[in-house]
Amino acid sequence: MTATVSQTVPSRSTRTERIPVAVLGATGSVGQRFVQLLESHPWFRLHEVVASERSAGKPYADAADWRLGTLLPDAAASLVVKDLGAELESPLLFSGLDSSVAGEAEELYANRGGIVVSNSKNHRMDEDVPLMIPEINADHIAAIERQRARRRSEGYIVTNPNCSTIGLAMALAPIERRFGLDKVHVTTMQAISGAGYAGVTSYQILDNVIPYISGEEPKIETEPQKILGKWDGSRFVPAKFTTSAQVNRVPVIDGHLMTISLSTRERTTIDAIRTAIETFIGEPQQLGLPSAPKLPLHYIDAPDRPQPRLDRDRENGQSVSVGRLRECPILHFRMVALVHNTIRGAAGAALLNAELLDAKGLL
Amino acid sequence: MTATVSQTVPSRSTRTERIPVAVLGATGSVGQRFVQLLESHPWFRLHEVVASERSAGKPYADAADWRLGTLLPDAAASLVVKDLGAELESPLLFSGLDSSVAGEAEELYANRGGIVVSNSKNHRMDEDVPLMIPEINADHIAAIERQRARRRSEGYIVTNPNCSTIGLAMALAPIERRFGLDKVHVTTMQAISGAGYAGVTSYQILDNVIPYISGEEPKIETEPQKILGKWDGSRFVPAKFTTSAQVNRVPVIDGHLMTISLSTRERTTIDAIRTAIETFIGEPQQLGLPSAPKLPLHYIDAPDRPQPRLDRDRENGQSVSVGRLRECPILHFRMVALVHNTIRGAAGAALLNAELLDAKGLL
Amino acid sequence: MTATVSQTVPSRSTRTERIPVAVLGATGSVGQRFVQLLESHPWFRLHEVVASERSAGKPYADAADWRLGTLLPDAAASLVVKDLGAELESPLLFSGLDSSVAGEAEELYANRGGIVVSNSKNHRMDEDVPLMIPEINADHIAAIERQRARRRSEGYIVTNPNCSTIGLAMALAPIERRFGLDKVHVTTMQAISGAGYAGVTSYQILDNVIPYISGEEPKIETEPQKILGKWDGSRFVPAKFTTSAQVNRVPVIDGHLMTISLSTRERTTIDAIRTAIETFIGEPQQLGLPSAPKLPLHYIDAPDRPQPRLDRDRENGQSVSVGRLRECPILHFRMVALVHNTIRGAAGAALLNAELLDAKGLL
Amino acid sequence: MTATVSQTVPSRSTRTERIPVAVLGATGSVGQRFVQLLESHPWFRLHEVVASERSAGKPYADAADWRLGTLLPDAAASLVVKDLGAELESPLLFSGLDSSVAGEAEELYANRGGIVVSNSKNHRMDEDVPLMIPEINADHIAAIERQRARRRSEGYIVTNPNCSTIGLAMALAPIERRFGLDKVHVTTMQAISGAGYAGVTSYQILDNVIPYISGEEPKIETEPQKILGKWDGSRFVPAKFTTSAQVNRVPVIDGHLMTISLSTRERTTIDAIRTAIETFIGEPQQLGLPSAPKLPLHYIDAPDRPQPRLDRDRENGQSVSVGRLRECPILHFRMVALVHNTIRGAAGAALLNAELLDAKGLL
Repeated sequence: MTATVSQTVPSRSTRTERIPVAVLGATGSVGQRFVQLLESHPWFRLHEVVASERSAGKPYADAADWRLGTLLPDAAASLVVKDLGAELESPLLFSGLDSSVAGEAEELYANRGGIVVSNSKNHRMDEDVPLMIPEINADHIAAIERQRARRRSEGYIVTNPNCSTIGLAMALAPIERRFGLDKVHVTTMQAISGAGYAGVTSYQILDNVIPYISGEEPKIETEPQKILGKWDGSRFVPAKFTTSAQVNRVPVIDGHLMTISLSTRERTTIDAIRTAIETFIGEPQQLGLPSAPKLPLHYIDAPDRPQPRLDRDRENGQSVSVGRLRECPILHFRMVALVHNTIRGAAGAALLNAELLDAKGLL
Repeated sequence: MTATVSQTVPSRSTRTERIPVAVLGATGSVGQRFVQLLESHPWFRLHEVVASERSAGKPYADAADWRLGTLLPDAAASLVVKDLGAELESPLLFSGLDSSVAGEAEELYANRGGIVVSNSKNHRMDEDVPLMIPEINADHIAAIERQRARRRSEGYIVTNPNCSTIGLAMALAPIERRFGLDKVHVTTMQAISGAGYAGVTSYQILDNVIPYISGEEPKIETEPQKILGKWDGSRFVPAKFTTSAQVNRVPVIDGHLMTISLSTRERTTIDAIRTAIETFIGEPQQLGLPSAPKLPLHYIDAPDRPQPRLDRDRENGQSVSVGRLRECPILHFRMVALVHNTIRGAAGAALLNAELLDAKGLL
Repeated sequence: MTATVSQTVPSRSTRTERIPVAVLGATGSVGQRFVQLLESHPWFRLHEVVASERSAGKPYADAADWRLGTLLPDAAASLVVKDLGAELESPLLFSGLDSSVAGEAEELYANRGGIVVSNSKNHRMDEDVPLMIPEINADHIAAIERQRARRRSEGYIVTNPNCSTIGLAMALAPIERRFGLDKVHVTTMQAISGAGYAGVTSYQILDNVIPYISGEEPKIETEPQKILGKWDGSRFVPAKFTTSAQVNRVPVIDGHLMTISLSTRERTTIDAIRTAIETFIGEPQQLGLPSAPKLPLHYIDAPDRPQPRLDRDRENGQSVSVGRLRECPILHFRMVALVHNTIRGAAGAALLNAELLDAKGLL
Repeated sequence: MTATVSQTVPSRSTRTERIPVAVLGATGSVGQRFVQLLESHPWFRLHEVVASERSAGKPYADAADWRLGTLLPDAAASLVVKDLGAELESPLLFSGLDSSVAGEAEELYANRGGIVVSNSKNHRMDEDVPLMIPEINADHIAAIERQRARRRSEGYIVTNPNCSTIGLAMALAPIERRFGLDKVHVTTMQAISGAGYAGVTSYQILDNVIPYISGEEPKIETEPQKILGKWDGSRFVPAKFTTSAQVNRVPVIDGHLMTISLSTRERTTIDAIRTAIETFIGEPQQLGLPSAPKLPLHYIDAPDRPQPRLDRDRENGQSVSVGRLRECPILHFRMVALVHNTIRGAAGAALLNAELLDAKGLL
C-alpha cells in the first residue's frame, strides 16, 4: 500500500481534561460498542448511560446484558442508568437508540443544546443534518451552522450512515472522486449483529440465508448519494449515480460483505481504480484522529478476500477491506467489500465523527 | 399457482424390468445422492458402483463414508465397488466423478457403448454433447445422433449443468422464452455441499463467507447461453445474452441462493413475468417423468423467501424456488432464486435427464 | 439388529372415520410439528387449531409463521384459529401450549370432558397424570381412572416427558428393566429448536455453546424416575436411581445429543447391555401403532455416532439412537444417545401417546 | 475476585537482547499462533520458521495460508521457511509439529542441544520430560537435569498438555491442592480449531455435534495425573484420582467448554472451593512472566457462563474460566470450565513454559 499519511495538522490535545459524554441506548448492541470503545478513549470520558424506563435506576452492569468478548469496563459498570429524556450533564451525546424512539429523543436533546452524534437512521436524510463519513465528506459539517439557526440552539445532530452503506460508500468514494460513478449494483451478505442482539433468532438463520432485511435496500440506494454529494451552502446536492441493492442476512456474527458491480462516467482501468483505492485517505488521517485507521481502505491482493472473520478487525475494525477488483461483462468493474458493521459501520463511525467535530472546534 | 400439467403422453411403463445402472464416483457426495435417489426408482435399478482404486474391491458400505440423513440403502450396502475403467454390465451410467478423472473415464465408457449421464463439468461444453435441463431444452437430444456418429458407437454422453447454473437457467427460462434476455447480473450464496464432502473446512466457513469459488464464475457466465440456445442440426447456437456472475460460499449445508438482476429484450411487466414463471412447465411434466416436479418453478409470495433451509426440499428438491420479483433501478427486474444444489443441481438433474432419454427411446 | 416385532395384536382399524382433533398452541414450534405430523395421519384428522388471542380469528396460514421444511398442509391453512378457552368440538386435544398458560388451560379442557394429550411440563408430575412413553410405561394409563374420578369428568390429561428426558429414559429403559439402575450422569447438548422458534437468538449461539437452560436440569433429574417407576393402584412409585444432569445449548437445529455414564444394581456386561438395547420393544411395536418406530432404539456400531444431523431422522424422527457403549472408569458404563427433540421429544411423543390411548379404547 | 498478586520477584530483564527462537511446524494452526504471539514478545524474537519439505525455501508469507484475524506480522512474512531437520541457529525451539513427525524431530533437535518447548503429544508422557503448566507444577523442571544426563546434551524437551487437559487441570488444581481429588467426570465440547485448520470439514460439523475425537479421551484421562503429580527426584509420581472423559466436537471456532463433576478426598464446601479457585495463583504470577494472566482462573458469577465466544479471550486467552459451581447428586460438586484451546491450550501454554525456563535460568 502506497498511501502516506502526512500528519501536518497536529492532533488536538490542548484540553486538559477528557470531555464527559453520554451514551443513549446504552444497553443495546450499538450502545455496548460505544461503552467498549470509550473505555480508553483519549479525548472522551463515559460519564452517563441512558436507556429505556425498564433499565433506568439500575447500575449499568445489571441493566446491560453485556455480550461483547471483552470485559465490561469497570468505570461503566457502576454508572446508574438514566431514563431517556432526563436532563444530562454531558455536552456530547452518542446515540445508539432504536429507531422507534431515536427521532424524538435526539431532537429533544439537540434542541436543549446537546451535541448528538447518532448512529440511528431517523435524521440521516434531514435537510440540514450531515450524514457523515469524515474521510469522504468532512466539509458537510458546514450544514451545522444552518441547523443551529433552525433550532435556535447550540445543539445539533450529526449522523453516520447505515452499516452497509458505510462499507459501500467508502469503497466507492475514491472511484467517485476520480472518475465519477454512473451505476452501482450491490448485493450484501450481512452479519446478524446488524439486527441488534435479539433481531435474528437462531432458528431463522442457522444453516440458512434470509434474502431480506426490512427497510435496508432503500437506505443503501439513497444514502450514498447524499454522502458523496455536496453541501452548497443551503442544502445537500446528492451525487448523481444510481444504485440497485439486494440484501441478505447470513449466519455471520460481525462483518457485512458485499459484491459490487459498477460503471464510471469517465472510462478508466483496473490499475487506476486500484491505485485510487490504495491511496485514498481523508481528514481523519490528516488530522490524526484517535479512532482513524491509518488506511481507510485495505486492498487485499488475494483471490478469495476479504472475508468477514479474517478481515473485519483490520485496524480495530475501522478499515473497510476491498478485493477481487476485476472487469464486469455488463457494467465496467466488479469488486468485493467488507465493513465491520458494529465498529466502522456503527459505533466506531460515530466516534470518528465526534472526533472530527472536536478537532474542528465544534464541541 | 395456475399451471396445469396435461399428461396426455402416458408415462413410460412398457418395460417389465428396471434398467440396471452403474454409478461412477459412487463414494463421493454426488455419488451418494445418486445411490440415495435410486433406492426406490421405478425405472432404474442400482446394479454397479464404481470408484477409485482405493475403494475398489470393498463392499460399498465400507468404501463409502455415508453422510446423508437417510440410511444407506440395503441393496447398495453389499455391492462390491468396481475400479474406474473396469468393464461394466449396466447399459446406463450415472457419473458423479471428480473433474480430475471424469473427462477421460466418461469418454472411455461412451466409446465402449455406454450411455453416460454425467454431472461432471468436463464435457458440458463439447460441441455435440447436450447440456440438458429437460424442462428447457429437451430437443437438444437431437445432438446425440451426431455424437454417436463421431464416436462410431451406440454410446454417448449427456450432461447437466453446474449446480448454480441450473438454478439460474431454470429461473431465467420462462423469461428468456417469452421476452428474450439481454443482460443478467447474478450473485450466488452457495452451500458447502457443492464443494463435496471435504471441499470446505469448518475453519474456513464458520462465522464467515468466502467470496470466491475456483472456476465457478466462468461456468455460470457461459453455460446458460448453451442451455437456452438451439441445436441447429449441426451445432449448438448459444442464446444471446450477457451474464455477470459473482459467487460466494456461505455456511449453509444444502441450497444455493442467488440474487438476480436482469433486462429483457422486449419490455414487459412484473405481472407478465410472474405469470411466465408460475405457468412454466416442460417435457418432464408433460411426460410425467418419475423425478419431475409437478411445477419446476415455485414462485413464493412472501417478502423474505426463498430461504435455503425452508425451501430447498420442495418437491423432493427437484423444484427451483423464486421470490422477491420487483423492478430494478438499473436493469429491468430483480428477483431471488434457490436450487437444491445436490438434488436438482446435481444427482436429481442427471436422473431426470436419464428418464427423458428413456421416455424418448434413447436407452 | 435382532429385535423382531410380533404384531399379533392387529392395529386398530374398526372406526370408519378419523377422529377430529384440536391442536392447542398451534402456531408455536411444537404446535407446527403437530400440524405437520397430523397431515396424513390414518386415525386422527386435524379439525381445530387453537392459539392465543393475538392469533384468534385469523386463518391458520396467516396466524402461523410456518417454519418447517415441508409445505404448510392445505387442510390446515384455511382453518380459522380459535381462542384458547373457547368451546371445542374435537374430543381429542393435543397441547403444545407454552407453560405460562398450559397449566390452567389443560385443566379447563379436561374438566370439560376433553382428552388432553400434552407436551407441556405443567402437569407432568401430577399425582394421577401419566407421564408416558408407551414403549416403557404403557401400563401407567391405569392412573386415568383415578384422574377421571377426581375430576368427575370423562376428560383427562396424559403427558409426555421433556425432550431430553425422553431420549435419556428410552436409552436407559432396557438397562433399568433388566439390570436395575443405580446412578446416572448425563451431559446434554441440546438443539436450539428445543427453546421454541424465538427462544435462542443467533447472537447468543453462533460460534458458541451456552452451558445452561432454565429449569431443565431438575426435569431431567426427576422425570425419568416417574417414567420408569410403577403405578401401584393409587399412586406412582418412582424408580430408585439418582441422576445428575448438566445441560448445554449448542448451535444445532434439531436433535438433542447426550453423553451418559451409569452404574447398574446387578453387575452385567457390555454385550448384555447392547443386546438389551437392540432387542428393546414395547407396546407401540406390538400394537403396530401408526407412529411407532419399528425399533425404538437404534444401536449404531460406529466410533463416532450418533450425530444429530445424520441420525435424528431415523424412522421419521421417532427412534432414539445410541452408540459408543463402553466401560466407565468411575461408574460402570458410558454411552451416547440422541433424540429428535421436536418429533420423538415432543409432538411425535404425544401422537404416540394418543395412538396408545385409542388402541386401548380410552378415546 | 480476591486474589492479589505479589510481584516480589522482579520480572527478568537483565538480557540486553531478545532470544532468537524457531517455530517448528510454523505453517499449521498452532504454528501460526506461535508466530502471532511472538510478534511483540519482550523476551523472544522470531528468527526461524521450519516446516515440511513442501514449504521449505518459500517466504513464510507464501508458505503459510495465514488464517488468523490479525495481520501476518511483517517480520515473519519475509522469513524463508527451513526444512524440518535442517540445522537451526536459534537456541530455543517452539514445536507445533504434527504428531506424525514431532516425535522424531523433537528428539533430534534436543539431542543436538536445542531446547524444545513443544505442544505436540509425542513426548508428554516420557519419563523425564516435564508435562508442564507453570501455575501448577513449575517444580517439574527438576526433571530436566535427568533428561539432559540421558541425552548427554544440553538440549531437552519440555511439553504442555493437550488443549482440553489444560483447561481441566487448571480448573482442578486448586481443588486437588487443598482438598485432594478422588473422582472426576468430564464431558468436553471442543472447538474445531483443536483439530487444525483442515481437521474438521464443514460438512461434518455444521448443524451437528460429533461425539468422538480420535485419541482424545485417553489423553484427558491420564495427563492430569502426571501434571498434578510429583517429581520425586527420579520419576514422576502421578496424583491418585480417576478421570472419566467423554469428548465431543461442536461447531465453535475457538474455546473448549467442559462440564465437570468431581469428588474430593477431604469433604469441603462450595464456598471453600470457590475461594480456592478465586485465589489460585502460581509461579507465573509471582514471577510476573510476560504471558502470565493476572488470574489463571476467572470464576464467573452468572448462571450461564462461561461461554466460548464471550469468555475465551479473557486475559488474551491465557485464563481459564470457571462457573456454575454447585453440588452434584452423585459425586460432590459440579462446575463448567472453558479454555481457549489454541492460546492457553496450545501456543500460549508453550510460550509460558519457555518464559518460566528463562526466568529459572534454564535457557
